[in-house]
Amino acid sequence: MTTSRVLIIGATGRLGQNLVRASIESGRPTFALVRGSSFSNPEKSALLEEFTRAGVQLLKGSLEDVSSLVEAVGQVDAVICAVSSNQVEDQKLADQVKIIDAIKEAGNIKKFYPSEFGNDVDRTHAVEPAKSMFDLKVAIRRKTEEEGIPYTFVSSNCFAGYFLPTLAQLGATTIPREKVTIFGDGNNKAIFVKETDIGAYTIKTVDDPRTLNKIVYIRPPANIITFNELVALWEKKIGKSLEKTYLSEEEVLKLIAESPLPINVVLSINHSVFIKGDHTNFEIDPSASELYPDVKYTTVDEYLDQFV
Amino acid sequence: MTTSRVLIIGATGRLGQNLVRASIESGRPTFALVRGSSFSNPEKSALLEEFTRAGVQLLKGSLEDVSSLVEAVGQVDAVICAVSSNQVEDQKLADQVKIIDAIKEAGNIKKFYPSEFGNDVDRTHAVEPAKSMFDLKVAIRRKTEEEGIPYTFVSSNCFAGYFLPTLAQLGATTIPREKVTIFGDGNNKAIFVKETDIGAYTIKTVDDPRTLNKIVYIRPPANIITFNELVALWEKKIGKSLEKTYLSEEEVLKLIAESPLPINVVLSINHSVFIKGDHTNFEIDPSASELYPDVKYTTVDEYLDQFV
Repeated sequence: MTTSRVLIIGATGRLGQNLVRASIESGRPTFALVRGSSFSNPEKSALLEEFTRAGVQLLKGSLEDVSSLVEAVGQVDAVICAVSSNQVEDQKLADQVKIIDAIKEAGNIKKFYPSEFGNDVDRTHAVEPAKSMFDLKVAIRRKTEEEGIPYTFVSSNCFAGYFLPTLAQLGATTIPREKVTIFGDGNNKAIFVKETDIGAYTIKTVDDPRTLNKIVYIRPPANIITFNELVALWEKKIGKSLEKTYLSEEEVLKLIAESPLPINVVLSINHSVFIKGDHTNFEIDPSASELYPDVKYTTVDEYLDQFV
Repeated sequence: MTTSRVLIIGATGRLGQNLVRASIESGRPTFALVRGSSFSNPEKSALLEEFTRAGVQLLKGSLEDVSSLVEAVGQVDAVICAVSSNQVEDQKLADQVKIIDAIKEAGNIKKFYPSEFGNDVDRTHAVEPAKSMFDLKVAIRRKTEEEGIPYTFVSSNCFAGYFLPTLAQLGATTIPREKVTIFGDGNNKAIFVKETDIGAYTIKTVDDPRTLNKIVYIRPPANIITFNELVALWEKKIGKSLEKTYLSEEEVLKLIAESPLPINVVLSINHSVFIKGDHTNFEIDPSASELYPDVKYTTVDEYLDQFV
């Protein structure tokens, strides 16, 4: 069995660090592109030390330094980009185009993972500004395909670590214990995946020919739940009923139109996920859970235990 | 010199864990009230192990179990409450009243710190819903005073770890690199303090008679800055100018009125801090930085380095 050498770009980020750890655990030679300044950064240097101890090869460089990027890409078989794309920023498009250019120049890459890890951006009903943000990812998909670069697009739906600690209550720093706001009627199924599990599933796909030039969906069966089910699960854990406020689609659209950046981005993502049901309103090929039944993912039920 | 025994309630939280570490580092016998369920929680148990190794005495109990609370209070000299109060929840008031009742019953406490660690709630110009949230803290202040319980109220202004990673852009998961939304004209001075420093300053006050029955303000001189200065500092670090959108007070008030919980809470706190200037629009006695010049606090400038 092949074990590709894996380069992770954005390795110190929320998802990136989980990709690094999963790659190392899988036994793959693992590389991380790291800015020189990160080594002298007290917050990041501890993480980089952990990586080094685990056997990660740290390559000094950045997207701004094209030669460092080409050199890094030349040393590996697979490139996973995990730079954040949560804001509507043209720079994000330019950054990933640089990676595609470097992959073309290097000519050796067997698998490219653009920064996806959310909705299937070809199948959303998002309104602005989420629409434009998703369109940036669509543009990168099309460019990857056009350039003939072998790829996997990973649709991992909601990061558990971003949504669950507050039950998707934007602005909250703790989980609600009295009141909760629900987008729409709360009856569409959404999907929440712990970042460590996204890392594990993604790395499983690296050398798997079934995933070549495919979208891989991470849909752990126990984590496909409606917002109402999510709230009910939490209520059961704390033995208490929450006061629920339902926002109609009309109210949410008005709020999105009137809110500044980046509040409107999050609201419009929530609109797509919870009101339009864009995680689950289409059929898919086997999901990652079926391809890799050996991954013991964390269920939403288990995840919520830490907040009781 | 006295070194009080310190009990921390909410010890596994964002601020609580920093209070625990600061108390241990100061050489004080340190106790944490911990729910039984936390020990079997994978996220919390690692932290509790760290505490145990550091010498913290973990006391099983909770605010719901009054006898456990009275017993815990009976073993110490100072009680610091660090339970979250970021949402408008009546339960938070009831919880702290239970602590006050336990302190009265135990009769031995020399210093009580209610869960403050934000604005000086007696001096804000907040609108709803922040107003009600601050009023809960005001009610606890008055009850503490009325019961004759010796206290220090710590006004630590903005948590750096909550505001700075996104430059206070609600909903963002990364720091802005292209666009930034600014509340008001961006010219009021706000104050940002790293959570470890809030822990260090707070613990310094425990046995300091100068702080008995006083409000202690944490205002590190280098961290008293306007929003415009904050953005300029960031722009200088990344060598790039951000596109700025200024929201007038009228626009912000309208948005607060129309937004659901808890978005409206955060917006109304930001209104108080950034538009009304409630961190700095009044004179104070010596701040913690003057009382304890030996605390080497992290400046906003240093804090932002990790995001470059």
